[in-house]
Amino acid sequence: MADPAKGTKMDASIVAKSFRNEIKAKVVAMKQAGIEPPLLVGLLANKDPAARKYAEWTGKACRADGLRYELRTLDDPIEVEAALIDANDDPRVHGIIVYYPIFGQEESFSGESQDDYLRDTISHKCDVEGLCHSYRTNLYRNVRFLDYPTNNQKCLLPCTALSVVKIIESCPGCYDFTKPVGRKLEGKTVTVINRSEIVGRPLAAMLANDGADVYSVDINSIYMFRDGRLHACDDSVTPESCVRKSSIVVTGVPTKNYKLPTEWVKPNTTVINVASFKNVEEEELLQIPGVVYVSQVGKVTVAMLERNLMRLYEQFHARNNKTDAIAGASSDKNSNNERQSIWSVRLQAYSAAVLTVILAMQLLKK
Amino acid sequence: MADPAKGTKMDASIVAKSFRNEIKAKVVAMKQAGIEPPLLVGLLANKDPAARKYAEWTGKACRADGLRYELRTLDDPIEVEAALIDANDDPRVHGIIVYYPIFGQEESFSGESQDDYLRDTISHKCDVEGLCHSYRTNLYRNVRFLDYPTNNQKCLLPCTALSVVKIIESCPGCYDFTKPVGRKLEGKTVTVINRSEIVGRPLAAMLANDGADVYSVDINSIYMFRDGRLHACDDSVTPESCVRKSSIVVTGVPTKNYKLPTEWVKPNTTVINVASFKNVEEEELLQIPGVVYVSQVGKVTVAMLERNLMRLYEQFHARNNKTDAIAGASSDKNSNNERQSIWSVRLQAYSAAVLTVILAMQLLKK
Repeated sequence: MADPAKGTKMDASIVAKSFRNEIKAKVVAMKQAGIEPPLLVGLLANKDPAARKYAEWTGKACRADGLRYELRTLDDPIEVEAALIDANDDPRVHGIIVYYPIFGQEESFSGESQDDYLRDTISHKCDVEGLCHSYRTNLYRNVRFLDYPTNNQKCLLPCTALSVVKIIESCPGCYDFTKPVGRKLEGKTVTVINRSEIVGRPLAAMLANDGADVYSVDINSIYMFRDGRLHACDDSVTPESCVRKSSIVVTGVPTKNYKLPTEWVKPNTTVINVASFKNVEEEELLQIPGVVYVSQVGKVTVAMLERNLMRLYEQFHARNNKTDAIAGASSDKNSNNERQSIWSVRLQAYSAAVLTVILAMQLLKK
Repeated sequence: MADPAKGTKMDASIVAKSFRNEIKAKVVAMKQAGIEPPLLVGLLANKDPAARKYAEWTGKACRADGLRYELRTLDDPIEVEAALIDANDDPRVHGIIVYYPIFGQEESFSGESQDDYLRDTISHKCDVEGLCHSYRTNLYRNVRFLDYPTNNQKCLLPCTALSVVKIIESCPGCYDFTKPVGRKLEGKTVTVINRSEIVGRPLAAMLANDGADVYSVDINSIYMFRDGRLHACDDSVTPESCVRKSSIVVTGVPTKNYKLPTEWVKPNTTVINVASFKNVEEEELLQIPGVVYVSQVGKVTVAMLERNLMRLYEQFHARNNKTDAIAGASSDKNSNNERQSIWSVRLQAYSAAVLTVILAMQLLKK
C-alpha cells in the first residue's frame, strides 16, 4: 500500500500491457479466421542512432504482439517520397511510419519543410502517427470522426500525445468518467511544458478538448488552451504560477539540464515526464504527499502505435482487403473505396433487376 | 502593326474579357433555365484600405457579369471563423473569399498562423482562391483532378498565379499547344521574382508542371523548380544570370523601389508585372526588340476568381442544388454529396426494377 504522506511512482507499462493484450487478442482472432494480421511499414533514411533505435523498438514490439512489421531502409533521403507513395498505394500495407528527421527543416517545392511535406503525403488510411493534415486539422477543431454525421470512422490521434492522455486516464482523480465526452476534465488545470507540433501542441489541444484549462509553456511564451482557442497570458503568468495552479503537469523538455522545480508542485498532482531526459528530480518529487509520478511513456507510445495500426486496418482495410489486392494498387485509396461502394450499390441494383426479370419470366411461363 | 524593332505593351484586359464573356454567357443560360447564378460570399474583418478596395472590386465585377456577391463585414476578427463555417455549411453559398490579413502571422491553436488556419478552413467546395490544403497539395504534386482516376473534377488553382499563366498562354511563342499536357512549356526558361505562398511559389510550380525550367528568385535564395522538386542553385546563379537566360520573366516585388534592370532582358522576352508596384521601367523595357510587356494582371485575376466560382458551382453545387436546399445545411458538404450519389444510383436501380416489373406485367396481360 502506498504511503499517503509520500508520492507514488507509477509504471506506465501496466497501461501499455492492457492495450497490447487487446491487440494480441485481436491478432489471435484474425489468425483463427485465416486473416493475415496488419502490416506496418517503417521508412528509415538516416543514420541517426535514436531513429534507428526507435525503428528497432517498434519492430520488436509489433512482432511480439503478432503484428507484421517491415523496415525499408533507404540510402538517399530523396528516395523516401517514392517509397512512401509506393507504400500508400500498396493494398497490402496497412500502416506507415517515417522515422524523422529525413530532411530536417529544408525548404520544399510546396513551401513547408520537406519533412512536413512527407508527413502530409502519408495517406490518412495508413497514418499510424495520426499527424497528416486531415487528422491534425480535425484534432484542432475537436472533430472526432472522419465521416460525420455517420460517425463510424474515428480520427486517429498522435501516438505520443495519446499515450500521455491514456496514462492520465489511468491515474485516479484526473478524468471524471461520469461526465459526457468533452467534459471529463472540466475544472482541471493542466500545465504542459513543451509546445512542439509532435507532442506538446497536440497534447494541449487534446486535454483542452476534454474540458481542461491547459497552460502551454514553451521557451518564449505561455498560452492558455481553452475552448478550441489560444488565449494570450499576461506577464503575471509564469511557468511557476502555471505549475502551482495545476493538478496535472507534463514535462517534455528535450535537454539534459532542465529540471522542474519540485517546490512548485502541489500535493496530489499527477506528474508525467514525456521527454527522453529526466525533467524531474524523482526523489524530491516523491516526497510530496499524494503525487503520482510517471517517468517515461515510451511503452505506451508503442502500444498506441499498434492500436492506431489496428484501427486503420479495421476502418479502412479490413472489408476491402481482398478486393483491393485483386484490383491492384490505386494511387488514391480513398477514391478507390468510393468507387467500390458505388459499384456495390450498382451490383445490388442490377441483381434486383435480373431477379425481377427471372420472376416475370417464371410468371409468364405459368 | 507593332514595330518589330521595339517592344509591345499588351493590355491583359483582352484576356480577362474573353473569360468574362464566357461567364456572362453561362449566367444568361442559367437565368433562362430559371436557375439562380452562383453566390460568392466575401468576408471582411479589417480596416485595411487595400482589402476594402479589393472587396469592392470583386463585388462590382461579379455584379457586372450577373454573378451574385454578398459582402459580410465583421467587427471582430474572432468572429470570422464562425462566419466562415456558416458559409461553408450553407447550401446557398457556392464560393467564399476571405480578405486577408485578418490576424496576420499571429500563432494559432493548431500551430500555423491564424490566417493560415482560416485559409485551410474553407471547404474545397467553396474555395474560389484555390488555396486550401487539398488544392495546394494537389498543385504541388501536379495532380490535376480531385477524383482520380475518374477525372471529372478539376482541381482549382490560385487566382493570381492562374491569371499569369493565362496571360502567358495568350502571348505568342510561349506555350506550344501541339505538345501534350505537362510539356507545353518544355525547353522554356522562366524567372519568377517572388516566392510568396500566394503568388510566386504556386506560379513557379504551375509553370514547372507545364514543363518549364523555373528560376524562383526571392530576397535570400534562388531555386530551380523542375520535375516537382526544388533544385538548389550554386553561387554562380544570380538574379541577373536567371533573367538573362529566360524568355519569360515575372516580377512580383511588393516594394516601390525595386526595378528590374532592363539590360538583363533579352529580345523577344515576355515580361509580366504581377506586383501592385511598377517593378519595371516601361519605356526602357519597350526599347528592346520583340519584348511583350504586361504591366498589371488584376483584371485577369478577378476573371479567374469568377471562373473558379463557376467551376465550383458546376462541380459541386449544380446538380444537388435544390436537394441540398431542401435537406438543409450539412456540416460536411463532401459526405453529403457522396450520400447523394449513392442514393441517385439506388434510385436508378429501383426505377429499373419497377420498369421491369411493369414490362413483365404488360407481357403477362397479353
